Amino acid sequence: MKPYVLGIDIGGTNTVFGIVDARGVVIASSSIKTLKHADVKDYIDELYENVMRLLEANDAVEKIHGIGIGAPNANYYTGMIEKLVNIPWPTPLPFAQMVSEKFGIPVAITNDANAAAIGEMTYGAARGMKNFIMITLGTGVGSGIVINGQLVYGHDGFAGELGHTIMKRNNGRLCGCGRTGCLEAYCSATGVARTAREFLEVRNEPSALRNIPVESITSKDVYDAAVNGDRLAAEIFEYTGNILGEAFADFTVFSSPEAIILFGGLAKSGDLLMRPLKESMEKNMMNMFKGKVKVLLSELKEADAAVLGASALGWEAKPLPGQA
Amino acid sequence: MKPYVLGIDIGGTNTVFGIVDARGVVIASSSIKTLKHADVKDYIDELYENVMRLLEANDAVEKIHGIGIGAPNANYYTGMIEKLVNIPWPTPLPFAQMVSEKFGIPVAITNDANAAAIGEMTYGAARGMKNFIMITLGTGVGSGIVINGQLVYGHDGFAGELGHTIMKRNNGRLCGCGRTGCLEAYCSATGVARTAREFLEVRNEPSALRNIPVESITSKDVYDAAVNGDRLAAEIFEYTGNILGEAFADFTVFSSPEAIILFGGLAKSGDLLMRPLKESMEKNMMNMFKGKVKVLLSELKEADAAVLGASALGWEAKPLPGQA
Repeated sequence: MKPYVLGIDIGGTNTVFGIVDARGVVIASSSIKTLKHADVKDYIDELYENVMRLLEANDAVEKIHGIGIGAPNANYYTGMIEKLVNIPWPTPLPFAQMVSEKFGIPVAITNDANAAAIGEMTYGAARGMKNFIMITLGTGVGSGIVINGQLVYGHDGFAGELGHTIMKRNNGRLCGCGRTGCLEAYCSATGVARTAREFLEVRNEPSALRNIPVESITSKDVYDAAVNGDRLAAEIFEYTGNILGEAFADFTVFSSPEAIILFGGLAKSGDLLMRPLKESMEKNMMNMFKGKVKVLLSELKEADAAVLGASALGWEAKPLPGQA
Repeated sequence: MKPYVLGIDIGGTNTVFGIVDARGVVIASSSIKTLKHADVKDYIDELYENVMRLLEANDAVEKIHGIGIGAPNANYYTGMIEKLVNIPWPTPLPFAQMVSEKFGIPVAITNDANAAAIGEMTYGAARGMKNFIMITLGTGVGSGIVINGQLVYGHDGFAGELGHTIMKRNNGRLCGCGRTGCLEAYCSATGVARTAREFLEVRNEPSALRNIPVESITSKDVYDAAVNGDRLAAEIFEYTGNILGEAFADFTVFSSPEAIILFGGLAKSGDLLMRPLKESMEKNMMNMFKGKVKVLLSELKEADAAVLGASALGWEAKPLPGQA
């Protein structure tokens, strides 16, 4: 078996790619701008040139077992990218097939949260676990679910949209998905900023956050204020952690995971988020599951995580019909 | 391979058992009273005698490949019955091992809702499906979840408690599990009766249900009234179906099932329940899943279903160490 895989993470701004060995060491990595080319064929050509340069520089041209790709709304079953929001390529796009034909190497693709879960299971905090849930707390709330040691793709390839579990059935916030009350509308980085704006409007306490123009407040501002002892900012994290805990207790009656693993910017908020989250999870937990479910932080280095997660999928990539 | 399995379903009143062939035909069945013996050893002795009589009468003594048991709070991983509510045997009880030692045949055990899911996958509406959710609407709301063709037992063997998903976060009804707002408190047969009492108290419309002493109203009374054109009774089904639909939409973002399959007394309410349920499910569904998830009724005959479901587990039962 060839000793390396190639991981490619396609973000709205950058496409990061790296050569990874079987132990999860990123041998070398590089990136290109995702949006430079309006035509996806030109993008794949540039990706190919840059990847080949990296492979040549690392004596790895004939050593890639497979390519794993993490991309928004990518379907593992079909290899298609179904929808793109900030990237102008036409969808649905048979991306896995296009990349595999260009490189002559087997390709597997999935969405970024699933890639993170596979990365965590292969190289990170979920090593040895057969049942866990990965929650990514970034601009949105993503999830990758592992049951019986396998990623859950569901009937159509789109399972694991836990950020769109309804947490507020009445008077909930509008979510990017068009519905109201989704977990993501409260517990993503943007959700935290919305909570800040809401709290500042309906409450009267003094807060350092009142010195920031209300529309430009970010979750980072809330974090900084809370770390500096701002009570209102700390309560915003309480509110966020409380909802996450309620959601995690519901996820547990579904799949009874060994752990729920957090990844992404907000996950680095330390006890500001973790204490209320764990308290709320245990308080809301069905008795038979109390004290059983760990809440852990990702063990993947953030700079490497996206590439590592995508790369792990490369080990299970299958050749196209007719491909060597 | 031996041609038959034995299915045993342990209910609070009766223990039903039957000989089943590979195509799901119940060759013969019988039952004993579950509560006759305070000592579980005496119960197993009586079960053994009655099963042997059935096997002898059907020339099946040496033809049983395995025994599958459906029992409340049974753990597939450990073979234990963890908790019993209306049965006086001490728990945790190593039930699979006790039965296997008595019969000298491999035994597998799981809870009744999981057994129903396995039965449906092996012989019923879920044949050929790799991703579906079984929901049993009886005294409680049970569930068995199948993902990638496998029952979901979770880290500890207790996954699939979807009846205890929180549907009302504020002012929810007290549930048997000790928390408030669970799906089961609204959408079980007893939940429907509670809704009836609530509606009759807070509303003024005339209803045939007002002729029944309020504490003795059952879901069957509500069904009968609705079938006879009672508006209030029909609205009770609307209310029930609406909550089930909200829950099913949330289950879908988790595992994206091909179908959700209903079993149990309430499931036989026809369009009184199914119309509002399907409408609510589609209304609350995330766009990417709209129109994709079927809601089906169990295809197992009710008299056979419990034994069939349990029996299907018998095909995968493993011998105890040292057993032939």
